[in-house]
Amino acid sequence: MFHAKAYAATSPTSPLAATTIPRRDPTPRDVQIEILYCGICHSDLHTVRNEWSSLASTVYPCVPGHEIVGRVAKVGAEVTRFAPGDLVGVGCMVDSDRTCPECRAGLEQFCAGQVLTYGAPDRHLGGVTYGGYSGSVVVDEHFVLHVPPNLDPAAAAPLLCAGITTWSPLRHWGVKEGKKVGVVGLGGLGHMGVKFARALGAHVVVFTTSPGKREDALRLGAHEVVLSRDANEMRKHAGSFDFILDAVAADHDLNAYVALLRRDGNLTLVGAPEKPLPVAAFGLLLGRRSISGSPIGGIAETQEMLDFCGSHGITADVEVIPMQQVNEAYERMLRSDVKYRFSIDMASLQAG
Amino acid sequence: MFHAKAYAATSPTSPLAATTIPRRDPTPRDVQIEILYCGICHSDLHTVRNEWSSLASTVYPCVPGHEIVGRVAKVGAEVTRFAPGDLVGVGCMVDSDRTCPECRAGLEQFCAGQVLTYGAPDRHLGGVTYGGYSGSVVVDEHFVLHVPPNLDPAAAAPLLCAGITTWSPLRHWGVKEGKKVGVVGLGGLGHMGVKFARALGAHVVVFTTSPGKREDALRLGAHEVVLSRDANEMRKHAGSFDFILDAVAADHDLNAYVALLRRDGNLTLVGAPEKPLPVAAFGLLLGRRSISGSPIGGIAETQEMLDFCGSHGITADVEVIPMQQVNEAYERMLRSDVKYRFSIDMASLQAG
Repeated sequence: MFHAKAYAATSPTSPLAATTIPRRDPTPRDVQIEILYCGICHSDLHTVRNEWSSLASTVYPCVPGHEIVGRVAKVGAEVTRFAPGDLVGVGCMVDSDRTCPECRAGLEQFCAGQVLTYGAPDRHLGGVTYGGYSGSVVVDEHFVLHVPPNLDPAAAAPLLCAGITTWSPLRHWGVKEGKKVGVVGLGGLGHMGVKFARALGAHVVVFTTSPGKREDALRLGAHEVVLSRDANEMRKHAGSFDFILDAVAADHDLNAYVALLRRDGNLTLVGAPEKPLPVAAFGLLLGRRSISGSPIGGIAETQEMLDFCGSHGITADVEVIPMQQVNEAYERMLRSDVKYRFSIDMASLQAG
Repeated sequence: MFHAKAYAATSPTSPLAATTIPRRDPTPRDVQIEILYCGICHSDLHTVRNEWSSLASTVYPCVPGHEIVGRVAKVGAEVTRFAPGDLVGVGCMVDSDRTCPECRAGLEQFCAGQVLTYGAPDRHLGGVTYGGYSGSVVVDEHFVLHVPPNLDPAAAAPLLCAGITTWSPLRHWGVKEGKKVGVVGLGGLGHMGVKFARALGAHVVVFTTSPGKREDALRLGAHEVVLSRDANEMRKHAGSFDFILDAVAADHDLNAYVALLRRDGNLTLVGAPEKPLPVAAFGLLLGRRSISGSPIGGIAETQEMLDFCGSHGITADVEVIPMQQVNEAYERMLRSDVKYRFSIDMASLQAG
């Protein structure tokens, strides 16, 4: 066991503050990673403030962070796929049972024995797992990803959650050239959805409530931008979309988007609005349309996404901050005052 | 043009009453059918009472009926697939544009130029189309189905709407041996869903709010019956269903059923609850589950279903009534006082 610098919250109402956490010495199958950057995901804030207590109460101290990019510092004797110095990533999971049908299908995100990167029971040290707001992390090699070295590591960090969360449904629902794809909500998730859908060859339409986001949506790769509050503009797209990626976590009218799907079209939610959303049966019936949800993605799929990013030069748009500004960053994230993801520079941890 | 006896409503509040309607002389591609039986669908009642005015206002007089079984009386010169005396069926559609991508894919139910069996603009005679509460109907041969002669025609009539409406999503979502299938709501649609899912080889579970329906559900083919108000019983099935057919038109809690789906499981609505149903995003996210809707089915698929019924001896459970009892039957249908579909014996029309 060794100790690492980290930032932790000690209660739902206390700010994140500097602390020291234990990390295990690498077992034969572990990779010890020096963390370079960690993205800030909205889930971090929800967990720190115990806002998902209906699913699972947060255990404190809580060290969040599951958009981790770093360099391999050390590997266990049986590790074959990584060597010291490699640029690597860790996302939302650090373990799973490896034997269930989901794991065997490469869909660890659906494994009931999945171990989340932070806040899950830690099988090695007891207590709960600590995430990436830290100088170091030790992870089984199966859950470590290769990050293409041509990518900026600060901007690559959000690929590990925002990236795979949008990539997975785009791939699952067959987005490719010739498909018309909508992206609802231009935030951390949505801006990745736009980049991926465009790079996959689709015709990409961004829906936004903010006229001010038009230019940026086009810059990110959208072919068209629709103001979702303009019923006339919306109507022009009725029945025309193969797939809509809905990345809005706030309350919104799903039925307005369902009406834009063509026959057998699908709308996938990757945001998680707190309150149930009313769905009108007729909108689904008339075009055999469907609404679904999608959580992160499997490990093989995450590597596929990172490799795609490497060959297409895709990263997130990030604002790099020192660890000491994380509490301010949370407040700004709540105001959507970030384009489009904060990435914490872990070198700043040395300042204390 | 000739005239046929029929029952029609002349306003949203008037009962159906005897009348005479015009029918076109068969064109070269038409089949003239002497109607033997017509099932009563809930849509008939909604249309007669103009309860779907938000979609389309009912035009009066209104002759409903789209679960038609009859004998071919006469065929046009170019008709190749039917001859006088054949037992045939007509469902919810009597025409479509034949050229759009939906029609070319055999999915006429999604054709924008689809002509419904009743209440749609009639291209031949003007006015609107008149349905199956009538002694006779003339239909383009493309929209006429062969009814296997081993089936009881009275009990086969509901296959043309209740049958295809449940068959289509069961087939679309891959129901077969090895799949666990739920059917929610044991009425006209639901009881067909149970018969089909069982005959397709699935493990069938019926969900009902009425303990009194248990025996009947088992008789119809269910392997298990779950009282949906019993949270403990429901929990035992969490995450286990490949597919759930939801045939409930009343307000109900979709999320309780979504939680029963396994990864990538689908719940398809074939009923159309009036008010939007609240859907919780997390239930969809956690298992990449989906909710969709499905309307009737295409013509080729309807023939496939009828052929399947012929070889498996499947028909609806019907209560045969004379035309003169239709208004009383509507009231009983509203009280769910029918097992499970009314079928009108058109011979009764001769009584006036």
